[in-house]
Amino acid sequence: MSIINRRLLLTHRPEGMVKREDFDLVRVPIGELNDGEILVRVLYISMDPTNRVWMRDIPQYMPPVSIGEVMRAGGIGRVVKSRSGQFNEGDLVQGLVGWQDYLVIHERAANAYLRLPADPGIPLPTLLGACGTSGVTAYYGLTDIAPVGAGETLVVSAAAGSVGSIAGQIGKIMGARVIGIAGGADKCRYVVEQLGFDAAVDYKAQDWKKALKDATPNGIHVNFENVGGDIMKAVLSRMVLGGRVALCGLISGYTGNAKPSDDFSVIIIKRLSVRGFLVLDYTKTKQAVHALSGWIREGKLKAEETVVDGLEDAPLILNRLFDGSHRGKLVLRVDPRSESNPSL
Amino acid sequence: MSIINRRLLLTHRPEGMVKREDFDLVRVPIGELNDGEILVRVLYISMDPTNRVWMRDIPQYMPPVSIGEVMRAGGIGRVVKSRSGQFNEGDLVQGLVGWQDYLVIHERAANAYLRLPADPGIPLPTLLGACGTSGVTAYYGLTDIAPVGAGETLVVSAAAGSVGSIAGQIGKIMGARVIGIAGGADKCRYVVEQLGFDAAVDYKAQDWKKALKDATPNGIHVNFENVGGDIMKAVLSRMVLGGRVALCGLISGYTGNAKPSDDFSVIIIKRLSVRGFLVLDYTKTKQAVHALSGWIREGKLKAEETVVDGLEDAPLILNRLFDGSHRGKLVLRVDPRSESNPSL
Repeated sequence: MSIINRRLLLTHRPEGMVKREDFDLVRVPIGELNDGEILVRVLYISMDPTNRVWMRDIPQYMPPVSIGEVMRAGGIGRVVKSRSGQFNEGDLVQGLVGWQDYLVIHERAANAYLRLPADPGIPLPTLLGACGTSGVTAYYGLTDIAPVGAGETLVVSAAAGSVGSIAGQIGKIMGARVIGIAGGADKCRYVVEQLGFDAAVDYKAQDWKKALKDATPNGIHVNFENVGGDIMKAVLSRMVLGGRVALCGLISGYTGNAKPSDDFSVIIIKRLSVRGFLVLDYTKTKQAVHALSGWIREGKLKAEETVVDGLEDAPLILNRLFDGSHRGKLVLRVDPRSESNPSL
Repeated sequence: MSIINRRLLLTHRPEGMVKREDFDLVRVPIGELNDGEILVRVLYISMDPTNRVWMRDIPQYMPPVSIGEVMRAGGIGRVVKSRSGQFNEGDLVQGLVGWQDYLVIHERAANAYLRLPADPGIPLPTLLGACGTSGVTAYYGLTDIAPVGAGETLVVSAAAGSVGSIAGQIGKIMGARVIGIAGGADKCRYVVEQLGFDAAVDYKAQDWKKALKDATPNGIHVNFENVGGDIMKAVLSRMVLGGRVALCGLISGYTGNAKPSDDFSVIIIKRLSVRGFLVLDYTKTKQAVHALSGWIREGKLKAEETVVDGLEDAPLILNRLFDGSHRGKLVLRVDPRSESNPSL
């Protein structure tokens, strides 16, 4: 019986929000494995702002996805067949899986994939979120890039998102006063009441700049920045002299709609230290995952995922990162039946 | 005999280049000194890009000069009369002197002024340039803000200017490969042949971006940035991963003509560390001045000033910073006779 693989190929570079028509859904039979090949069933796909950047033909930290190529994405899968000693049938693997049902890894490229324990002790979507790329990003941003100290004021943008929600909670664990910026009253209530932030500013409210000012009477020592544009501009204007910025993301510009309105002059005026970083530079992330999972077990860190079904809808699901209609980590579950039934 | 003080008062906030009509030249008699007052004859006025920013009503690191106020500027003067124990007649003082012939300092504010040795051993204009604010800025930029190491590639913009010319030479002293960016073939020849830079890129030449690329085959480790805009953009695109930027100035935007085209995303893509700084944050500058004057004596550092006469022309002289028609430190000599004749 041949296995049919659904794959989403990028056919047009999207303008603004992603459209279904920007991708071709193809169904390709998977042939017999050759020696050294490993067949992986994709279970969960991580939906990340960086996916949207990979669709654009602009300078970035990786080559953009080529036209006609399967959409690149991180995720978790299970090995369903192996003709290599590197992975065994049943192994859970994490890495770049792509927007597809299955992928074939050659053992020469197998070291780009992490083998997860048979029972990770943590739900798989959390391994993509609070204990995965998102959590590790937040961890190094606030311990290595722009360490935040007790008593300092930390402002986190996209505070209800996958990275921001963890960054704010880490700030609290470090003893900082934490202000979140999020869109809408619901998210603002969420980060304060559920995640323990000290205050939240709703950037969709008319008077949000005044609210930010009121929430940071002594200025801002550290900015964990995920958004850029006007939000970052307002935050930078409230920084203390010598403040530190962990520049993690600039999601407001990723769809290509927003005109860049960045202005380096505030970096001089406020004598800021602005450091850009990417989690992929941290190759040894055990320490971070250990700390994060420990905090979850101790109840100090809340992990939340928005899990949405349906590979075919991936382009539209991704848009939820940009219209703000999700909370925590956004994860696509390829097939609701596949996790419990390894034969699918 | 009453002394007449010529003062240049800001009357309009200039648009683009500064015009004579943006200032009123007033002649005000100086009355008798009160107890605690010190009368200073201004000898040399430092012409700095930051002067142009002080004329603008925008957020900055100091309040802008108010309409009707004497134009703020640093410089060197000599005490001609003192009714305070803080300074004696004949003392040379350095600090904010303003665009005027004389200023009266009250002893309560006297600690904002530095007393120079009776014979500084260095020409007074050099005390405003290589051994003054400009040199100290370059020194801390490359030793504290973005330290440059032997064998690294350093790119300095506005390389023939007061700060850039010193920064590039310090880079050479530190063992770096130094590339200057300057406007015009003359300046490029100057920084290579006279100042010992390894190469120079003429940003007024058609193919300057390619020239920059060719001059930095292994990328750029450290950028000492004075200009901003398109020049900085081209430099950042050549940075190595994890490169460091000492953000000293953004002169291309100071006249308010250039639209900001800054884009923070390169800071993430290249994992840069961008640090803004102001020399006024360094209150103990003895170490820097000691090192700089030592290098001058040893022949390792060349100091050059463009000294221009004429207080009344100060607004037009300042424009030379922005049209590029000067080299090294631009200094206004208030009166050619005043230095040798303390009674003037």
